[in-house]
Amino acid sequence: MKASIIQTFENFKSNPTLVQSITNYVVMNNTANALLAIGASPIMAHAHEEMSDMSQIIHSLVINIGTLDAYWVESMQKAASFANNNHKPWVLDPVGAGASAYRNDVLGRLLSQHPTVIRGNASEIMALAKESINSKGVDSSNSSDEAVSAAKLLSKAYGAVVCVSGEIDYVIEGERMASIGNGNSLMSKVTGMGCTATAIIGAILGGQKDAFLATLTAMAVMGVAGEMAYEKAVGPGTLQLHFYDALYELTPDVLERSIKLGSHA
Amino acid sequence: MKASIIQTFENFKSNPTLVQSITNYVVMNNTANALLAIGASPIMAHAHEEMSDMSQIIHSLVINIGTLDAYWVESMQKAASFANNNHKPWVLDPVGAGASAYRNDVLGRLLSQHPTVIRGNASEIMALAKESINSKGVDSSNSSDEAVSAAKLLSKAYGAVVCVSGEIDYVIEGERMASIGNGNSLMSKVTGMGCTATAIIGAILGGQKDAFLATLTAMAVMGVAGEMAYEKAVGPGTLQLHFYDALYELTPDVLERSIKLGSHA
Amino acid sequence: MKASIIQTFENFKSNPTLVQSITNYVVMNNTANALLAIGASPIMAHAHEEMSDMSQIIHSLVINIGTLDAYWVESMQKAASFANNNHKPWVLDPVGAGASAYRNDVLGRLLSQHPTVIRGNASEIMALAKESINSKGVDSSNSSDEAVSAAKLLSKAYGAVVCVSGEIDYVIEGERMASIGNGNSLMSKVTGMGCTATAIIGAILGGQKDAFLATLTAMAVMGVAGEMAYEKAVGPGTLQLHFYDALYELTPDVLERSIKLGSHA
Repeated sequence: MKASIIQTFENFKSNPTLVQSITNYVVMNNTANALLAIGASPIMAHAHEEMSDMSQIIHSLVINIGTLDAYWVESMQKAASFANNNHKPWVLDPVGAGASAYRNDVLGRLLSQHPTVIRGNASEIMALAKESINSKGVDSSNSSDEAVSAAKLLSKAYGAVVCVSGEIDYVIEGERMASIGNGNSLMSKVTGMGCTATAIIGAILGGQKDAFLATLTAMAVMGVAGEMAYEKAVGPGTLQLHFYDALYELTPDVLERSIKLGSHA
Repeated sequence: MKASIIQTFENFKSNPTLVQSITNYVVMNNTANALLAIGASPIMAHAHEEMSDMSQIIHSLVINIGTLDAYWVESMQKAASFANNNHKPWVLDPVGAGASAYRNDVLGRLLSQHPTVIRGNASEIMALAKESINSKGVDSSNSSDEAVSAAKLLSKAYGAVVCVSGEIDYVIEGERMASIGNGNSLMSKVTGMGCTATAIIGAILGGQKDAFLATLTAMAVMGVAGEMAYEKAVGPGTLQLHFYDALYELTPDVLERSIKLGSHA
Repeated sequence: MKASIIQTFENFKSNPTLVQSITNYVVMNNTANALLAIGASPIMAHAHEEMSDMSQIIHSLVINIGTLDAYWVESMQKAASFANNNHKPWVLDPVGAGASAYRNDVLGRLLSQHPTVIRGNASEIMALAKESINSKGVDSSNSSDEAVSAAKLLSKAYGAVVCVSGEIDYVIEGERMASIGNGNSLMSKVTGMGCTATAIIGAILGGQKDAFLATLTAMAVMGVAGEMAYEKAVGPGTLQLHFYDALYELTPDVLERSIKLGSHA
């Protein structure tokens, strides 16, 4: 698995991708900078009139509902539909799942369009499973085990790779599971680090058909770059900028030496 | 007063707040980062459909009209209305008051919903008083004294705490007034520092019923963090990132040693 | 020419301008920070209701279509129309020209309103010329020579100064042409550096009637500040913040010593 991850990252660096992001206002700048730093090209476009044309030229699509409203939700649905028709993979970031009935309703509609990958934190993944599958086995507690169970249910129900990010990042596809133990807690004090992870998943997914492997590679890249940045950071402000530098500098060799990959039966 | 400020900050650090921000596109990233750095949790949401649900889970609300348009103005009015019904305090940042008739009209409507706190610079506070109270005593000159007079009129007319930020930050509630002399002029060369002050007021206001004390505490935190950042900064770019680090590192002890509190009869 | 550039920059520093930006969500924070750092004042406003009032108080207008949609396009058209009526110069940044039919259509409408200056990269300028003039001489290849030819055609067709930015920045007005050789390739790994160049053009254009000279001065400022930042940067994250510091610190003397001006017959 580790060799496949390094190979996936090498392939990405040799064949950088063009990623359309329909994301929230708070993190647009972050995620565009992260995509550029890693070598990908971001397109931020949401006008209904151009969703079809954009879908032709991209390698992958990122949908993040953070600052949703009716117009943007329609953009997301159109973009997902064109992505499916054009066989472009797409990632869903269910920001704030469970925080409002409207979010839950929109997420239900997007799930029904079958995202290739879903990435959220534990509480978002649990809320998503609870609302969309209405499983009694998924409650609102925040433990990792519950989130992993929710992710497995979601993955099976929608045929998606599901990533639960946190201290340990879990990547799940049906019964298949792996984990990444890189990163640090200061990253949670910088806005949009989760959204950036989703963007990096999108970037690597654009050139790797195995979505499980692409997601695992992206989470390893995030975690290792976060560790590199942490060595130079004093607080969240300095962490953020060193993080972009680290994404820019990260090589397959460093990734190979630093990755903390967990295997799961 | 100084002891009450330190106590307020300690209480906030032990009981961090969840703050909804309906703010302008330019500063969303800044203010989310500032809220995270100080220990609060930001929610950026503006869809009409979720204003009611969001109001249930938040401690306080920030409304900033910087990049307003009709849809967002309706979001602001709904959110303010739900905040009032749910007894959640809210802060109004009247960005660009006086720059257009539309802004003045919108501000008049938001003032009529009785914000808990209003924070602006001298010219914004004067424009707000002039337009909304039509006072002859408030002209368009930019002096601190005029702004303080305008703030007193506004405070009495709307029952709000009013903060005039600048070289000296004045906090006013009726005849009650105090001031903070921390900060530095380089902060004005970083976009959104005023908006960030408003966000920090929101954060502390979410856990402190005395809005005058919450506002004074927030302005002290801003000013002292700005001074800590200035020591490491070369220009506005480095100031901004060290500012987030400083917000993250700031302790009640450092605040107590550094605060420059002015008392006013 | 060099003396005129330095004089233009000195005049700007003595008479800073107020610049309205209708720009994309990704770069609003960047461009506001760049304008503040150089000494200008940014206004980010797009509500239809206030386009007329804003046009009264500004020195210049920047229109950037990066994250366009129907509402924002109408804001841009209104703002351009008021700018023309009020004799305020304006700059067009045709982000993503050629990427969708919708973008091309909107750009055609904005070109018909006669921007004072147009700035884009080689592929955007070529796409713009191809779509709007339908010239056989302009193909979709990416060479500098082709882009310069496209820029000349555009300049003649619309009476605008056209800037093609890249490793060498070309500024063209009919047959008049000059170039700036400052800057570095790491700048392309920071999102919004092109949009920032457009904002700086707007800032200097607000106080300099010779739009060719204003554009050339702005591109020199960008390139020299980029070089100053590069000396302190490790990667794109650190480059961005040192870039704001450099804009803040840049003096006419440093500009004069560092500028790499090319002359063209």
